[in-house]
Parts: sequence; C-alpha cells; structure tokens
Amino acid sequence: MSRNGFTLWFTGLSGAGKTTLARLVEKELKQRGHKVEVLDGDIIRTNLSKGLGFSKEDRDTNIRRIGFVCDLLARNGVVAIAAAISPYREIRDEVRGGSSAPFVEAYVECPLEVLVERDVKGLYKKALAGEIKNFTGVDDPYEAPGSPEVLVHSAAESPDASAMQIIARLVEMELVELELAELAQQTGDEEEDEEEVRARLKALGYV
Amino acid sequence: MSRNGFTLWFTGLSGAGKTTLARLVEKELKQRGHKVEVLDGDIIRTNLSKGLGFSKEDRDTNIRRIGFVCDLLARNGVVAIAAAISPYREIRDEVRGGSSAPFVEAYVECPLEVLVERDVKGLYKKALAGEIKNFTGVDDPYEAPGSPEVLVHSAAESPDASAMQIIARLVEMELVELELAELAQQTGDEEEDEEEVRARLKALGYV
Repeated sequence: MSRNGFTLWFTGLSGAGKTTLARLVEKELKQRGHKVEVLDGDIIRTNLSKGLGFSKEDRDTNIRRIGFVCDLLARNGVVAIAAAISPYREIRDEVRGGSSAPFVEAYVECPLEVLVERDVKGLYKKALAGEIKNFTGVDDPYEAPGSPEVLVHSAAESPDASAMQIIARLVEMELVELELAELAQQTGDEEEDEEEVRARLKALGYV
Repeated sequence: MSRNGFTLWFTGLSGAGKTTLARLVEKELKQRGHKVEVLDGDIIRTNLSKGLGFSKEDRDTNIRRIGFVCDLLARNGVVAIAAAISPYREIRDEVRGGSSAPFVEAYVECPLEVLVERDVKGLYKKALAGEIKNFTGVDDPYEAPGSPEVLVHSAAESPDASAMQIIARLVEMELVELELAELAQQTGDEEEDEEEVRARLKALGYV
C-alpha cells in the first residue's frame, strides 16, 4: 500500500501534550497503513541536536534540523511527525516554506496556568524559581501560530478527542483516506469493536 | 512499486570519489524504481551538523547523526546513501550495529599519493602545509574497513565501472533486483540504446 507523505508539525508549550498526541496519531495512521516516524524532543536531543542549547540561535538550528529530516522522510512517502516546542513563528514558517511535501501545523494550545498547576515534570516550578533559564512561556517567548491547519485545546478535551480531530482534519485535507470500507469490515468481523468504530466515525463527523 | 530500503555507506579519504559514486548509484537506482536520498558532506554540514568541528568527538557525533537519519529513511523503504569520510572504524561499526535496515559499507580506496597529486579542491596542499589541521590522511587518522561489502579502487577504474560494481554487489545481496526483463525490453524498443544495455549487462557480469 503506497501512500503520500507529509509533515505533521506539533507546536505548543512544554507539557501541553505534543508527544502524547504525536503517539496517538502515529498509532492511528499506522493502523491505516501509513508509514510514520515521530521525532519528539527526546529523540531529537539525543540523535540530532546534542550540544545545542536554548538560545534563540540554537533553538532555530534545532528546528531547521528537524524540518530537514521531516522533509527527507515526507518526500519519500512517510508521515513525519515533529513534536517540538518550536516557539518562533518565523522559523516554523521557514520550515514550512522549505518543505517539498505538504506541511500541517498542529497547535496544541493549553493555558500557562494549567501547565504550571499540572507541572508533570516539575519544570515550571524550577523555571518560575529561576533555577532553569530560557524556559518557554516563563522567561522565553512562545509565538502561537496565526492560522495553523489544526488547533486543539488540551486543557479542555481528552487526548483521544484531540487526536481524532487531527485525523479528521488530515482526511479533510485529503492527506489521509477515510477508510469506510475498512471500518465497515471491522464492524462486521468483530462485533466487540463496533462501539470503537462508531466512536471513530462519530469523531470524524460521519455518524 | 514498493522496494526495500537499506543504507549504502561510502567511506574513504577526501577526494576519493565518494560523492561522485553516490550520485551515479543514486541515478541508476532511481531508474530502477527505488526511492533514494544522498547525504553527502555538504548537505550534512549545512543541514545536520552546523557547528561541529573536526575533533574526534565532533566527527563521531557527525557520523552517528548521519547514521540516525539514514536508518530513519532506510527502515521506511528508502535507499539512504551516505558519503562522508567517516574515518573511524568503531563508529562506522556502531552505526551498522544500530541499523534496523540492511547496512552496506562501500570503501572507496584511493592511494594518498594519487589524491595529493590530483588535489581537486587544493585541500591536501593546504593540509600538508599545515594551513588546515586535523585533515584525514595527513595529520588525522583514516581507518580502512576490514571487510566492507564493496571495495572499489577509484585510482584504477572509472567512476562508471565502480558504480556498476556496486550495483552488481547490491544485486548479489538481493537488495536490488536484476531487471533483465526491463533491459531486454529496452533493447527491443530502442535500438539506439542497445549498446548501453550491453555495457550495463557486461558490467554486471552477465554477457
């Protein structure tokens, strides 16, 4: 099964849920026969950007590098999913402009207050105490996308709901096929999955 | 047409002909329906390794990074061709060991004397004069592969002959299909290409 590649670029503050959503979308797209690679912060820092810090210049280099790798993959039929804070609009737009395959920006919006309260990794507390410098949203800027292809609100909806919203948008953009036949077949074959299938169809706005 | 990916890793001294061979092999494999990406020194320095120098640590980081990107591509069905000096055996072997797709090492051998005499970019002259430091083969080591999958001698044979030898080895390793039917069809359809087809078959050892 051959499918077209594209870059799905998650942007948003630390802790907003970019990697969680990237993994959910990855799982769903793989089920639909796509080749998918996720480049999240940890993978990138380990394999592509060791030695880079958090100055604007280093952040920009990091984002350009991820963009380069995403495009290598995307133009060869892979769905390349990037999950990096990518705080600067200009560099995100530069990566978009340099892409030879479709580029989809997904903004994972979450109010700073919610993130500070959750603070899963304890990073916001440290940043607010001045123990970590150049922390996006605290003492480093985050420039939200003006018109992203997808906008999800991770404080207001579940990760599954956000992921399905993203898939629906990809279907709408004709980057992902709506596989009704496949879904119908699943419904017939495995009755225990019917509810799940219905949920998926509902999320996509088809029932 | 879906084909399996693999990494074709060129190693050899500066000026030995790695990029030239990478481009010739790329052209041939694309003609045969493969997806191919070439990561040569210039592309890498621009897009992946800006800021890295030529210390052993920086060289190792550079090679690991190229290996990471090659594997991302290769495991998604792309032929990833790396053309980097990659002087250290241990790191080449580490990249090989970490590959989830087949890894083919192609050693482009060329005697240092020949390279110094050719000196296409004038780099050897500068290195020998001490104007460039840490230059592989002059004041920095090059560790030749012990048992590469392919060994070509760029001082003794033409780039075309070396490229065909590499293709023949890839066919032998069953990473590339021998497309006899296609070649025969070409011979029938376009008589002006017959000589070229014969040359290709001959290079492959079939006529």
